[in-house]
Amino acid sequence: MTLAAGIDVGGTKCLGVVVDDTGAIVREGRLPTPKGAHSIIDTLARLAGDLAPYDTLGIGVPGLVTRTGVLRAAPNLVDIRDFAVGPLLSERLGHQVFVDNDATCAMAAEWRLGAARGAADVVIVTLGTGIGGGIVAGNRLQRGAHGFTGEIGHILVDPDGPPCPCGRNGCWERFASGSGLARLAREAAVGKRLRHVVELAGGEADQVRGEHVQDAALAGDPEAHAVIDAFGKWVAIGLVNLTNILDPELFVLGGGLAKSPALYLGPIARWFNQLLYAPDLRPHPRLLFAELGERAGAIGASLLHNVQE
Amino acid sequence: MTLAAGIDVGGTKCLGVVVDDTGAIVREGRLPTPKGAHSIIDTLARLAGDLAPYDTLGIGVPGLVTRTGVLRAAPNLVDIRDFAVGPLLSERLGHQVFVDNDATCAMAAEWRLGAARGAADVVIVTLGTGIGGGIVAGNRLQRGAHGFTGEIGHILVDPDGPPCPCGRNGCWERFASGSGLARLAREAAVGKRLRHVVELAGGEADQVRGEHVQDAALAGDPEAHAVIDAFGKWVAIGLVNLTNILDPELFVLGGGLAKSPALYLGPIARWFNQLLYAPDLRPHPRLLFAELGERAGAIGASLLHNVQE
Repeated sequence: MTLAAGIDVGGTKCLGVVVDDTGAIVREGRLPTPKGAHSIIDTLARLAGDLAPYDTLGIGVPGLVTRTGVLRAAPNLVDIRDFAVGPLLSERLGHQVFVDNDATCAMAAEWRLGAARGAADVVIVTLGTGIGGGIVAGNRLQRGAHGFTGEIGHILVDPDGPPCPCGRNGCWERFASGSGLARLAREAAVGKRLRHVVELAGGEADQVRGEHVQDAALAGDPEAHAVIDAFGKWVAIGLVNLTNILDPELFVLGGGLAKSPALYLGPIARWFNQLLYAPDLRPHPRLLFAELGERAGAIGASLLHNVQE
Repeated sequence: MTLAAGIDVGGTKCLGVVVDDTGAIVREGRLPTPKGAHSIIDTLARLAGDLAPYDTLGIGVPGLVTRTGVLRAAPNLVDIRDFAVGPLLSERLGHQVFVDNDATCAMAAEWRLGAARGAADVVIVTLGTGIGGGIVAGNRLQRGAHGFTGEIGHILVDPDGPPCPCGRNGCWERFASGSGLARLAREAAVGKRLRHVVELAGGEADQVRGEHVQDAALAGDPEAHAVIDAFGKWVAIGLVNLTNILDPELFVLGGGLAKSPALYLGPIARWFNQLLYAPDLRPHPRLLFAELGERAGAIGASLLHNVQE
C-alpha cells in the first residue's frame, strides 16, 4: 500500500491529504497560508509532519511553476517571486518533493479519480476569480517546455477588450471568470436595468458580484439570465479555441461557478455549438463538472509522483 | 533499410516521396489532383505504384481527418465529403495505409527531419491562404480525441471581427494568413494611401494580394511596412494564445510567408513580447521557419507509421 501525500497551497489556507492506492483519503490537515516564502516553507514542513507517515509528497501552488519546482510568481500569494518551493522543502524534509501548478494538479486528480477518468484528451477549466487550466493530451498530463502549460485565462479573445491586471487587454478571464461575470453585470446595470441584481448587491451597481447575478438568475430574473447568456458566450469562445487547438473528448469545468452547473450549462453549450469550427462534422467534447471539489488540488498534488512523464 | 512512402494530396497536385532510414528522399513522383473521391483513389493508387517498392505508405490530406482515415471535409478539394481515403486506398492496394491531416504531416516532418528536430513541445503554424497547425506535446505528435487537433486557423481572436467562410466571425486566419494580409492591405488602401502597393496590384485596391504588400515592403515602402506590422500583431496574437495554452519551446512557421522570413520576424517577435502573459518570467519559444519546403507534407506522411502513439 502506497500512501501519497499532497498539499494544495491556496491564497488563504494550505490543505493537505493522504491518499491510498484506492484513491481514498485516509488523513487530512489544514493550516493558514502565511505571508512570505520562508513562512510558507515552515507551514508546509509542519503540515507534512501532521500528514506523516507517507511514501511520497506533492505540492500544488498557484502561479507559474518551472519544471524544477520554482514558483516564478503567484498573484494570490503575498511577497512571492522566484520561490524555490520544491528545492527548499525537499532540503528541509530530506526527501524528494513534486511540485506543480494547482490547476495542473486539479487536472491530475479529476483525470485519475474524478470526472475525467479514462479519458486520453481532456482540458480542465477552473472558473474562479480568474481562470486556471490543465491539459491531458495523448493520455499524458502536459507540462510544456518550461512547466507553464494551461495559462488559459490569458488567451486573448478581444485585443481591444478591457484591460487585464496582467497588463494586456481582452484576456479570456476578463470575461469568463467569476470576476468577468461581475464585470459583465456591472456594465449591463446602466440606467434602471438589472434592478433585481443591483438590489441583491445592496443597491449599488458597482458592488455587483458574480453571486448576485447567479442568485437573481436562480430566482428567475430574466435580466440576470441575459447576463448569464452573455457570460456563457464568452466561456464558449475559450472552450471553442481550446477545442480547435486540442480536440479534447471532454472539458472538466471547475471553480466556484461549478456549484450551479444547471444555470450555466445551457448557455455555454448553445454558444459552443454556434462558434465551433465545423460543428456538424465532428463529435463535440462533453462538458462535465469537476467532482472532487475543494480537495482536487491536494489530491492531484498527491498523484504527481505517478503522472510524471 | 526501411523505405517509407508518403503522398501529400494538395489542391492542384499529389506529391509523393520515398524516404529511407536516414531521411534521404530516394524517389519522387507527382500527379495532378483530380476532382472527386473515386478519381483521387485512382490517382493515389497509380502514384503509389510509381513510388514502389516501399515498406509503408502514408497519405496527408487537407481538412478534417478522423483517426480512422476518413476525410470529413476538405475546403480545397472538389466534391469531397466523408471520403474514406484510408480504408478505400488500403483495400485497393491490399496493405495498411496511414492517413492524417497535411499540417500534422508537416509537423511530423519538421519534428523528425527539419527545424524542430529534438524538440518535445512544438507547434507548426503554416501561414498560407488559410492557417494550418500541428502539435507535438510531451514529445508526442498529438491527434486529439477525434483526429482534429491543430485547427488553429479558426481560433476566435475577435468575436466581432470580419466574417470567415467557415461561418463564424474573427477567426485567426482572417487576419494572420496570406489572405488576411491582403485584407489588411485592402482596408488600409482607402483614399490615396498605400499607393505603391496598389500600383503593384495594377492600380486597383481590391486587387491587392499579400505578395504586393510583401514586394512593396521589400522595396522599402514605409506604408507597406506598416501593414506588415499590423499583420505581425495578428500573427503574434495567435502565437501568444498557443503559448499560453501549450508552452512550446519553439514554433515552426511555414507556408508561403515563410519565403521572406526577414520581413516578418521582427514585427511578430516584437508584438509577441508585448502580448505574452508574464513575458519577463519565462523563456520565450523560439520562432523558426520551416526547412523542408513543399515536400514537408509528403515527407511527414511517410513518417506516420513511425509516430503513431
